[in-house]
Amino acid sequence: MSASLTIALDAMGGDAAPEMVLRGANIAQQRFPDVRFLLFGREGEVAPLLAKYKKLQAVAEVIHTDDVVSSEERPSVALRSGRNSSMRLAINAVHDGRAQGVVSAGNTGALMAMAKFVLKTLPGIDRPAIASFFPTLKGESVMLDLGANVHCDTNNLVDFAIMGSVFSHLVLGRIEPSIGLLNVGSEDKKGHDALWDAAAVLRGADSLPGRFHGFVEGDDIAKGTVDVIVTDGFTGNVALKTAEGTAKLVSEYLRQSFRSSPLASIGYLLAKSAMNKLRKRLDPRRYNGAIFLGLNGVTVKSHGGTDALGFANAIGLAVDLAKGDFVKRLQEDFAKLGRVQANARAAV
Amino acid sequence: MSASLTIALDAMGGDAAPEMVLRGANIAQQRFPDVRFLLFGREGEVAPLLAKYKKLQAVAEVIHTDDVVSSEERPSVALRSGRNSSMRLAINAVHDGRAQGVVSAGNTGALMAMAKFVLKTLPGIDRPAIASFFPTLKGESVMLDLGANVHCDTNNLVDFAIMGSVFSHLVLGRIEPSIGLLNVGSEDKKGHDALWDAAAVLRGADSLPGRFHGFVEGDDIAKGTVDVIVTDGFTGNVALKTAEGTAKLVSEYLRQSFRSSPLASIGYLLAKSAMNKLRKRLDPRRYNGAIFLGLNGVTVKSHGGTDALGFANAIGLAVDLAKGDFVKRLQEDFAKLGRVQANARAAV
Repeated sequence: MSASLTIALDAMGGDAAPEMVLRGANIAQQRFPDVRFLLFGREGEVAPLLAKYKKLQAVAEVIHTDDVVSSEERPSVALRSGRNSSMRLAINAVHDGRAQGVVSAGNTGALMAMAKFVLKTLPGIDRPAIASFFPTLKGESVMLDLGANVHCDTNNLVDFAIMGSVFSHLVLGRIEPSIGLLNVGSEDKKGHDALWDAAAVLRGADSLPGRFHGFVEGDDIAKGTVDVIVTDGFTGNVALKTAEGTAKLVSEYLRQSFRSSPLASIGYLLAKSAMNKLRKRLDPRRYNGAIFLGLNGVTVKSHGGTDALGFANAIGLAVDLAKGDFVKRLQEDFAKLGRVQANARAAV
Repeated sequence: MSASLTIALDAMGGDAAPEMVLRGANIAQQRFPDVRFLLFGREGEVAPLLAKYKKLQAVAEVIHTDDVVSSEERPSVALRSGRNSSMRLAINAVHDGRAQGVVSAGNTGALMAMAKFVLKTLPGIDRPAIASFFPTLKGESVMLDLGANVHCDTNNLVDFAIMGSVFSHLVLGRIEPSIGLLNVGSEDKKGHDALWDAAAVLRGADSLPGRFHGFVEGDDIAKGTVDVIVTDGFTGNVALKTAEGTAKLVSEYLRQSFRSSPLASIGYLLAKSAMNKLRKRLDPRRYNGAIFLGLNGVTVKSHGGTDALGFANAIGLAVDLAKGDFVKRLQEDFAKLGRVQANARAAV
């Protein structure tokens, strides 16, 4: 099947598009020589860039469109007026079966609205969620939702728990992923009602694709206490960005410390390869690529401000998911669990 | 007035109490030689510890009680059955005017419930909030609420904005603190309704004790984009703990990096004093001490797991606030703003 795998790229999405997208696709082509690419965007800009990368050119096709969704566009407006945008046409390619996944570094809200409209959610899933990996003391974990759904009810949280653990299993290889609900402590019934109800459902479900750990708190994210952190899109987005900001703060403090004395500067030079390793480990490009979980098609959102290497990593995630037949497996697991879930819900 | 300043300490609160409390009070006594202490707790345990610190002994009085609020106690239960607890008696001392501030490293929920019950909220303030400093790229900022109120309405958020900026002004010396509402982006009316309504009120208020900046996101916390971050207690608690967890993760990665090669180990030795500076800058003990803002009395919560140095810092915050007549000034500013606020609210 790998010979037939094609990834659709929104060549116009992202701060440094289309150049960043083309350079990213070129890196991805070297990693996945058997993957083909559909590049949606302005041919006059995309084709000359593509001409620089001979090997990529051999496996890529440019599909011209003038329209581009701007980063400020409201999702509802983009949905109505962006029917011929590079983003929309790239999503259409997945729907039509011409591609097995789509990657865009464009407007997140517009991408979600369009992908949901074109690809639809899988049977039994009310709302898709944005999920991504992040580094922990124990390795890597998955967190969702990272911003698709500001308000979440009990059923949404339960769906996220199931989707997140299937994702953790298929992509990170966890046999029985542990699932935690993000809360603010367990004393005196703290937290929102939806969280307590979701915990009751997850505790009662007897064939989860993972093990329900219970509630976790903000510091458990980086500790790696659980494999899957489940939360609403508001809290998840704040937590993700708070973690990013904090990592940058500590790195900046570290840089300042090394510059604070001549001895420290020499120390830095001696420890340079170790520091590079640290930088690499914390490099946000390494974790670039969030998946829209629950859609009937692989949709990966790259950070808009990423560079070619980060974008190549987002493509890599789409390739992994497409090769692993992720959507089909998620759907199967979900169907199997549907009854259990319904029973558990009824029992609450 | 400094001669008459007394701080009440819950000698039994905290993982390593009462020893940690006594050692912390001893450090604080060296920093503030003119401050007196009331130590509430089991005399049989507290007095022998106090006997070790002669100078502290000269300015401290032990007030015996057998009762202690456990860390697992529900706030409602502690409120009913903890009338003679060390925590409750320490709060009573502030109410009776025998002390100008109370510090406890005990059960947060119980401390809030008791302090609210005994000290009451200031006129016009519906709910107290937990506020604390944290380090940023630009210095220090204040965030609230950190966990007292899981659900917050528009009025609560507006109150927090006012209390936070008065706090920033009085304690951090900011002339016109900038205020940000924590949200998940500004596009397409993202976020909860209460946030949008609070933003409208703050934009419309013409005599805020600060300048309303607008919405900020999670990464703005560490950036120091604003002086005061306003959020509900659920989100604030998750953000605070996520930041703590991430800082620990990066520090651990750093430690591992330095150990990864002999050269890096030598580099570490050369850069050691710089690394100690970094550690100091990130030391959570430095930021220990959260204030319960909006109460009619200075109430400071220390982290339960802190050590003597961290506890001394929490005492330092209580001393600063008591010396600066913080509660009176907050009340005055709040009274001045009351009308403005009511008008702005009516206009929404």
